[in-house]
Amino acid sequence: MKLKPQQLREFDELGYLVIQDCFSELEVAVLRAEAERIYASNREEVWHERSGAPRTAFAAHRYNEAFAILGRHPRLIEPIEQFFGEPVYMHQFKINAKAPFDGELWQWHQDYGTWKRDDGMPDARAMNIAVFLDEVFAVNGPLMFIPKSHKGGTLAAVHDKATTSYPLWTLDNETVTQLVEVGGIVAPTGRPGTVLMFHGNLAHASPPNITPFPRKIVYLTLCAVSNHITKFTRPEFIAHRDFTPITACEDGALFDYAQRYKVAAE
Amino acid sequence: MKLKPQQLREFDELGYLVIQDCFSELEVAVLRAEAERIYASNREEVWHERSGAPRTAFAAHRYNEAFAILGRHPRLIEPIEQFFGEPVYMHQFKINAKAPFDGELWQWHQDYGTWKRDDGMPDARAMNIAVFLDEVFAVNGPLMFIPKSHKGGTLAAVHDKATTSYPLWTLDNETVTQLVEVGGIVAPTGRPGTVLMFHGNLAHASPPNITPFPRKIVYLTLCAVSNHITKFTRPEFIAHRDFTPITACEDGALFDYAQRYKVAAE
Repeated sequence: MKLKPQQLREFDELGYLVIQDCFSELEVAVLRAEAERIYASNREEVWHERSGAPRTAFAAHRYNEAFAILGRHPRLIEPIEQFFGEPVYMHQFKINAKAPFDGELWQWHQDYGTWKRDDGMPDARAMNIAVFLDEVFAVNGPLMFIPKSHKGGTLAAVHDKATTSYPLWTLDNETVTQLVEVGGIVAPTGRPGTVLMFHGNLAHASPPNITPFPRKIVYLTLCAVSNHITKFTRPEFIAHRDFTPITACEDGALFDYAQRYKVAAE
Repeated sequence: MKLKPQQLREFDELGYLVIQDCFSELEVAVLRAEAERIYASNREEVWHERSGAPRTAFAAHRYNEAFAILGRHPRLIEPIEQFFGEPVYMHQFKINAKAPFDGELWQWHQDYGTWKRDDGMPDARAMNIAVFLDEVFAVNGPLMFIPKSHKGGTLAAVHDKATTSYPLWTLDNETVTQLVEVGGIVAPTGRPGTVLMFHGNLAHASPPNITPFPRKIVYLTLCAVSNHITKFTRPEFIAHRDFTPITACEDGALFDYAQRYKVAAE
């Protein structure tokens, strides 16, 4: 899947791009079911909130067939190759749960702030792609973006190890206020299968989920191969050290898998 | 101000009513300015979040002229008299801050649950009216309602004294899930001056405010005089013991006050 010039311009201006219904309900249903199985498993890659609810599952593309296909899907890989003009590798892969009632906030941050400081990634030539597994409403802890906040580079941040179970380099209130004065705040919503692409320096956060609605999102962090990380301070399942270029699978691969999965379940 | 038959039917069906732009910007501006003055004052009626940010200011209609006018305003008093078919008195009056970055959540609850258990209010013949002092967006901690949840009466609740600084009788996750299956969740947004009226048994909550946008809302709790409380367990400034029927002021009273205020400030 290639992005149109208008989409590239929009991304450049705002720092993010929304692609509604990028995956079909059949394709998403299998990922949703497999995500729940992964959360229920007892693996070091699955992290929990203080309440015990799942928070995030890392590296599922390595131990789960459905997510392995997603991690090589051309609808995700090709646009990022297009952005960076070179092959990409998987820097991080996670399924964030934002569980009903218990899903805690993610503080205001830039992803590249962490990739640079913790992982020694040379440049902001890596990007997150979010794939909605559940419908994201305004009320169930949507991702909030500050449009245009990617334009100021990597901003000062503090390493917050206390607010949630996940250590994060977070922006202070004054910085967020200044960015919001320029760009405002948007919280894109959409059906399962919707995809968000956002710049590594785009400031974002998400509030807790206090509703009964689940809000699972898969995040692929795709990095230009020439921009691979140089510091190995985090576990390998969080910041991967395999810089092999990803070869995209067929566009119909997840659909075919989902059909076989459905037949097997019946 | 009298409600139309269509509005009364909508309220009966859904348990709440939204009146956009019920107060003008001039009228709201004076309330907003005075609310900040009150939060900065050192009174026992002003409560704070654990961070120190203001959470709520009680009974400002008794010690502040602008809020005294709001507490007798016919756009708020007359519709509630219409609902209950009799005069009303002020059971509670508060200005909730939901401060930028620090405003914490309010858990899922029914207001009448507290009025009944803590204050011995005989029946759910009291109602909250919310007046937005700031613009309420989807992102700055809006009030969330479960439509139709007022129809099942007063539901089982537990007294939560731990989650926030304000003790509240809260609904459990299973109850909330069941109510949401019937009614869904709405989070009405609107400009400053927008008014929400909602049934004493309507289940509601609000998430934290993690944005730089303030989200101050005034809540008047108006109770039918014949339904006055019978137990005095909470401080008088939280649950009033003066059951005198409210006599509405002129519709232009707040506007006139705001004009004088503006002139005096110039």
